[in-house]
Amino acid sequence: MSTAPKIISENRCFGGTVGFYSHHSQTCNSKMRFAVYQPPKAKSERVPVLYFLSGLTCTEENFMAKAGAQKFAAKYGLMLVAPDTSPRDTGIPGENDDWDFGTGAGFYVDATVEPWSEHYQMYSYVVEELPAIIAQHFPAQIDHQGIFGHSMGGHGALICALRNPEQYTSVSALAPIAAPTQCPWGKKAFTNYLGEDEENWDIYDASELVLTVGYKRPILIDQGTADPFLEKQQLLPGIFAQACEKAGVPLTLRFQEGYNHSYYFISSFVEDHIRHHAAALKL
Amino acid sequence: MSTAPKIISENRCFGGTVGFYSHHSQTCNSKMRFAVYQPPKAKSERVPVLYFLSGLTCTEENFMAKAGAQKFAAKYGLMLVAPDTSPRDTGIPGENDDWDFGTGAGFYVDATVEPWSEHYQMYSYVVEELPAIIAQHFPAQIDHQGIFGHSMGGHGALICALRNPEQYTSVSALAPIAAPTQCPWGKKAFTNYLGEDEENWDIYDASELVLTVGYKRPILIDQGTADPFLEKQQLLPGIFAQACEKAGVPLTLRFQEGYNHSYYFISSFVEDHIRHHAAALKL
Repeated sequence: MSTAPKIISENRCFGGTVGFYSHHSQTCNSKMRFAVYQPPKAKSERVPVLYFLSGLTCTEENFMAKAGAQKFAAKYGLMLVAPDTSPRDTGIPGENDDWDFGTGAGFYVDATVEPWSEHYQMYSYVVEELPAIIAQHFPAQIDHQGIFGHSMGGHGALICALRNPEQYTSVSALAPIAAPTQCPWGKKAFTNYLGEDEENWDIYDASELVLTVGYKRPILIDQGTADPFLEKQQLLPGIFAQACEKAGVPLTLRFQEGYNHSYYFISSFVEDHIRHHAAALKL
Repeated sequence: MSTAPKIISENRCFGGTVGFYSHHSQTCNSKMRFAVYQPPKAKSERVPVLYFLSGLTCTEENFMAKAGAQKFAAKYGLMLVAPDTSPRDTGIPGENDDWDFGTGAGFYVDATVEPWSEHYQMYSYVVEELPAIIAQHFPAQIDHQGIFGHSMGGHGALICALRNPEQYTSVSALAPIAAPTQCPWGKKAFTNYLGEDEENWDIYDASELVLTVGYKRPILIDQGTADPFLEKQQLLPGIFAQACEKAGVPLTLRFQEGYNHSYYFISSFVEDHIRHHAAALKL
């Protein structure tokens, strides 16, 4: 039994509540924070849960403050859960030196290389510890869960769903890092968190995973055509699309003309994504 | 003729564009920034304009990033314009000392007291210079304008509309500072910007203005019951309601149970406000 998360703040929103919480994570061996939106329906009954994993530099706040998702979570009766993107203030030397590694950049992997391995266990945190806390302390239907995310968090959502198809009923992503073992961000993070041996990287690469484990349910991905990180070959949705084609995975990849990598892009399509998850969760 | 505002960034959003701009303001004798959302309809024709005035500490960004208004502005074909809340980096000693006065706290008045009067002319900036720039450089129907705002910006929207009923077809406010001459924030700002003589304050107090100039069109105000600044007597919507009753002004004041002063409150009701303005603008 985990101790109850400490409430940082709670805010009424679309008839429900956006709350921010902190707790001691056994998995990460540090304090962790997360945000939860409880829709109005959760006042009277348990509701399905949709996790959102954020991108580089984000905290648990960005999605709740900027995506405009609460309106649609309220409509469909979905709980939204958004964890922070890494442990913080762990004392690891250099944790704050880079914006694309360390603090705010956990990459949703379980680090195996010292000193990161002592705290950076974001994969297990997201897949195991966080759902257990949500199940215990919030009115959640823990057998009805979906997951989505943006950029680094789109990568996270895809690998969590591909590796745990029984746990997550639905998955989608906005501008995900879709082939991290082949892009600069991913290579840097995986080298430092997982070591030089690239064989250990594939279980955290959606494009590799799709080829080895497959996936039977529909995946929705939106990608802006004016996204500067698309041009810089950080996202590589085409590699993921090729892998899905080869593996017979039902992917819908939509290139959205003129949209960039910002929350102005996310907010424009978040309704579609929540509808995708609501349909899979039979809401 | 003003020189064209400089583009800081532009972001596709709900089929339109959120842009951030800077320009030299003749009125404020300094650089000023503002944000504009152009809905999809503005690509082919001129559209009505809805101004949003932000609260203490905000910039031109908060509303565009957090309110979730673009979806509804796109639906109704409304341009959204959000100015910054004050000049910045003017060099006035002490401009950054307080969060509720100076930078980020222009209070939408034309300061008459030195040294603030050299730059802090936010009333004239919002009512005159900014609309002229919008008319000249954006596809705006400048004879179809509405205005709304939050907190300090709700105060600003109310005084702009009450003093210029021919210019603004519609007005609404979220948790406005509704009687600034009677609350601590207003007294501090007005004393410093306008001087000790309280007779000069009334033209910037919505509750006083309603009694002297009246108002014929419907005013919509939403106020959260869990707003800490309501309890601290900073907002005083009841005084405004009493004045409207006395003056026969068609006010709808809605107390929203459990909502606080944050953007989680604003985003929950922004659709209602945009619908209020769209109806007045016959959209």
